[in-house]
Amino acid sequence: MSMNAVCKVGLVGAGVVGGGVAETILARAGLLARRSGVHIDLVKVADKDQPRAYAAGVPKDRVVDDFRAVVDDPEIRIVAELMGGTGVACDVVMSALAAGKHVVTANKALLAERGRDIFAKARDKNLVVAFEAAVAGGIPLLLALRDGLVANRMQSLLGIVNGTCNYILTEMTGKNLPFEGALKEAQRLGFAEADPSGDVDGKDSGHKLALLSALAFETWIDFSRLHIEGIKNIRDIDIRIASNLGYTPKLLGVIRAEPRPSSSEEGGRGEVAENGRLFLSVHPALLRTSHPLAAVSGSMNAVETEGDAVMESMFYGRGAGRYPTASAVVSDIVAVAKSVVFGGPGPAWFPPEKNAYRIAPFTDYQARYYLRFVIRDKPGVLGTLATVLGARNVSIAAMHQFEADRFDGLASVCLITHSAREGNLSQAINDISALDILHEPPVLIRIEG
Amino acid sequence: MSMNAVCKVGLVGAGVVGGGVAETILARAGLLARRSGVHIDLVKVADKDQPRAYAAGVPKDRVVDDFRAVVDDPEIRIVAELMGGTGVACDVVMSALAAGKHVVTANKALLAERGRDIFAKARDKNLVVAFEAAVAGGIPLLLALRDGLVANRMQSLLGIVNGTCNYILTEMTGKNLPFEGALKEAQRLGFAEADPSGDVDGKDSGHKLALLSALAFETWIDFSRLHIEGIKNIRDIDIRIASNLGYTPKLLGVIRAEPRPSSSEEGGRGEVAENGRLFLSVHPALLRTSHPLAAVSGSMNAVETEGDAVMESMFYGRGAGRYPTASAVVSDIVAVAKSVVFGGPGPAWFPPEKNAYRIAPFTDYQARYYLRFVIRDKPGVLGTLATVLGARNVSIAAMHQFEADRFDGLASVCLITHSAREGNLSQAINDISALDILHEPPVLIRIEG
Repeated sequence: MSMNAVCKVGLVGAGVVGGGVAETILARAGLLARRSGVHIDLVKVADKDQPRAYAAGVPKDRVVDDFRAVVDDPEIRIVAELMGGTGVACDVVMSALAAGKHVVTANKALLAERGRDIFAKARDKNLVVAFEAAVAGGIPLLLALRDGLVANRMQSLLGIVNGTCNYILTEMTGKNLPFEGALKEAQRLGFAEADPSGDVDGKDSGHKLALLSALAFETWIDFSRLHIEGIKNIRDIDIRIASNLGYTPKLLGVIRAEPRPSSSEEGGRGEVAENGRLFLSVHPALLRTSHPLAAVSGSMNAVETEGDAVMESMFYGRGAGRYPTASAVVSDIVAVAKSVVFGGPGPAWFPPEKNAYRIAPFTDYQARYYLRFVIRDKPGVLGTLATVLGARNVSIAAMHQFEADRFDGLASVCLITHSAREGNLSQAINDISALDILHEPPVLIRIEG
Repeated sequence: MSMNAVCKVGLVGAGVVGGGVAETILARAGLLARRSGVHIDLVKVADKDQPRAYAAGVPKDRVVDDFRAVVDDPEIRIVAELMGGTGVACDVVMSALAAGKHVVTANKALLAERGRDIFAKARDKNLVVAFEAAVAGGIPLLLALRDGLVANRMQSLLGIVNGTCNYILTEMTGKNLPFEGALKEAQRLGFAEADPSGDVDGKDSGHKLALLSALAFETWIDFSRLHIEGIKNIRDIDIRIASNLGYTPKLLGVIRAEPRPSSSEEGGRGEVAENGRLFLSVHPALLRTSHPLAAVSGSMNAVETEGDAVMESMFYGRGAGRYPTASAVVSDIVAVAKSVVFGGPGPAWFPPEKNAYRIAPFTDYQARYYLRFVIRDKPGVLGTLATVLGARNVSIAAMHQFEADRFDGLASVCLITHSAREGNLSQAINDISALDILHEPPVLIRIEG
């Protein structure tokens, strides 16, 4: 490969990630050229706050304050959008595509919410929109799903894709902290933002799940209709009980194709029907402590996938941070630059024109459930619970009743169910709530893995 | 992308892996074409045992018994060598390259031992030799290291890359079995071959480590000089003691660049000197039970890497098996086919003409050590041990003496050392062995992670 090939690149945004990308490209120009055959020439960096770009080592004459100077530069072939948000960032991406430039972005919210328009535009102009850094940060996950596992129909995916939530749940588990205490600790250490709602409400995980559904299951979902539950209502008492039962709490993004393989005897040849249904959800879940994802602690991310040829795989690493995210962004820039210079499709990927799966209603979701009821300790209550659940087809796998408190006479009953339909389970919960036996609303946590 | 592009492919070998590749290409032609834009046309499969190819669904008129019919076919652009071994397989690969064909192979032994010639030939002819399946089976690890982590200098790599050994050690740990018992169990279940020596002696792991060194550290090693220890001498008593101390035994391939980063405060910016030394070894090691690799059980494989931008990552999955391996081989075939049809370098990779690192002598290797001495329980022996170790600069972090057996008067002493130099440690062991205090040769297991 010739070492003289050059690809001119512009960045928009020189904050934590953008600054890290600029720094990496500048410091690693020789290494990247040796490995890829292309010299990545960072010709313009746009940021309203120009000193941020200077701090990343960008020469002053390459820093501009208006993104249009990047998008309008006829020599620039790749625009990396690293400002975040769904407002101006959308203009940056759409106008870069309109100007015939490939786009690299780490912006999950933008792609999950506006991806259809963006990818349609890219397809139209035969341009790449690469977004390795948008899901699971530094982990080369999209590359693995798109190219490494290209021969597989994916059957299921379980992901820990939000480091803030994983940090909080790890602290709650390890230190017996309530949610608020663990959140404060996470904020103090920089693992949670001052306004943590986008993370702890599960929305950020939802954005990533939407992109994983499009990429790995060829199914684009309407983000506003995705089932999302955050971790705010997870209580330390349930973590403690679950721990004793051998379970670890995680905020999971789940995708599961139906029908699931009936047999894996033949090394995972179970077929996933192309016209089947896809189950998607973001919710706190319990995993057996021996499950590979249960060991993913602190702010780390990991995604476990099951493909019908490769069977189970797991990809683990840093989901955020200046240099880990830059590592992913730069890998996209290099891949696109190689296709610009040498030809070939590069990391091109477009959502399917037709979804491979129909989205199943969440009421048909199947899981095992951890349930906790605080009951007034009267004779016959346990039998009533079991009867009502049974009438809704929810069958009990394990039950633990804890002695009633001698002052308030309230007893806790924990149940682990066999696999049950979400719709049946919630009807059963409604039935139970209608009876006058519960002291407080029941607790429900799904069990996955 | 046009759906009409066709790339003609030939396979040599229709055994477990080759048959799985043929089956996958034939069954997945439509899916692969939709995802890649290329129709992979499997035009010839060579195997002396032709019915094996028929059983994989290859039409009879496409099966031949001589690999030359594949290599000499002018229409074939990609030859997949899946027969294994370093004899005929080498002819297949070299003659395919000589005939101007790209090569895909799963053959780690061939590449580790003959890779220099093979890659030189490929470079010469500007052809690809892709080998995703040669390391860690179905895990898209080489893709991740080559493309996904392209912006990183790798600092270290720890890999569980032999499923047979991992299965045996997992059984020994979980069921308190001696090596021989666990091996028999592994053979009964098909996780070990009738002649298990290539696996349990560590040679197979060594082949993979050599390829990882070339790919991730740009350093080609002389395979015959790689330090390799297998698992045959691991005893159940040491696993039991280590377990109680919070450690899990694994057969690890280790690569570590020197100098190691002095600080990771800046998100892992610690530089690895390009002219520094590289430490490589395959040996049984103890990992803290909380280490991500410690949870990798049974026949699963996993590789943990540390890059200077992305920091720690881990890639986990099936290291062997018909369909998992086929998944990796087919991903290579698709990637090469895309570059054949659309241009671009594809998964091209060549070992560096000049190694990035010098290979350090194993005597300079640094690790913590688990040591067990069976001593004749005489006054002063413990002090003697500590003194001799100290004189060789080996400092003790923990010590446990177990009560002497009342019949034989022999006591066991376990030591965990602080980080020490291998050369010093073995001198100390020699010094101790020269004294008349040991009842049997001492046990030494390195502690990693």
